[in-house]
Amino acid sequence: MAQDSKIAQTIINLEKAALDRWGKGDPSGCLELCAPEVTYFDPFLDRRITGLDELTRYYENLRGKISIDRYELINPAVCVAGDVAVLTFNYVSYSKDNEPSRWNCTEVYRNFEGNWKIIQTHWSFTRPKA
Amino acid sequence: MAQDSKIAQTIINLEKAALDRWGKGDPSGCLELCAPEVTYFDPFLDRRITGLDELTRYYENLRGKISIDRYELINPAVCVAGDVAVLTFNYVSYSKDNEPSRWNCTEVYRNFEGNWKIIQTHWSFTRPKA
Repeated sequence: MAQDSKIAQTIINLEKAALDRWGKGDPSGCLELCAPEVTYFDPFLDRRITGLDELTRYYENLRGKISIDRYELINPAVCVAGDVAVLTFNYVSYSKDNEPSRWNCTEVYRNFEGNWKIIQTHWSFTRPKA
Repeated sequence: MAQDSKIAQTIINLEKAALDRWGKGDPSGCLELCAPEVTYFDPFLDRRITGLDELTRYYENLRGKISIDRYELINPAVCVAGDVAVLTFNYVSYSKDNEPSRWNCTEVYRNFEGNWKIIQTHWSFTRPKA
């Protein structure tokens, strides 16, 4: 369990470092964390994205367009299952002139020879309108 | 890879069987698939549900209230990572007198001594209003 706790902290630190860059308009932190076989959902897509190439094309269109003043990662939990660690949390971002933006997030990390990489990302709005 | 393909089919069959019961107002199929440590998101909650006890209380309130005529599980994909299998798909449900309901879904399954159980569920609307 001490080992799981250490993994949990590693995973949360990786996620925060990527989100810090994301909030400054830089998607590379997120992309560098992803495995080639990553799958991805967010609320702006008609369907799942499958694979890092497709996700890269999508994220490159957002480069320089995101500006987040600060965010909260609420109650992050990591479930370690062998070489996989499943991170879940609620998230709120704050930006000038906008209402706070509230999200649900799942990140499935897999350990590839010592490097944790994301194989599944799911971002959704918390209580959107139907 | 043949083994992964067999696991993928097993996982998809488990999911469909639970969804079939769900569409008839019976949440027990989903609950029986979950591990005690399951975490859960859907668009009607203010925050993550943590643990099968909390999810059971939530789902029992829905018992008998769901009626789905038919659904499509679109492009399901299973990523097998050791004892974990990550199922993702888009989903559309059809019910009398309602517009089709479109969803994104992530289900993280873990193999517990031969029994696949869900440790993370994330349902969200496809392209909801912000």
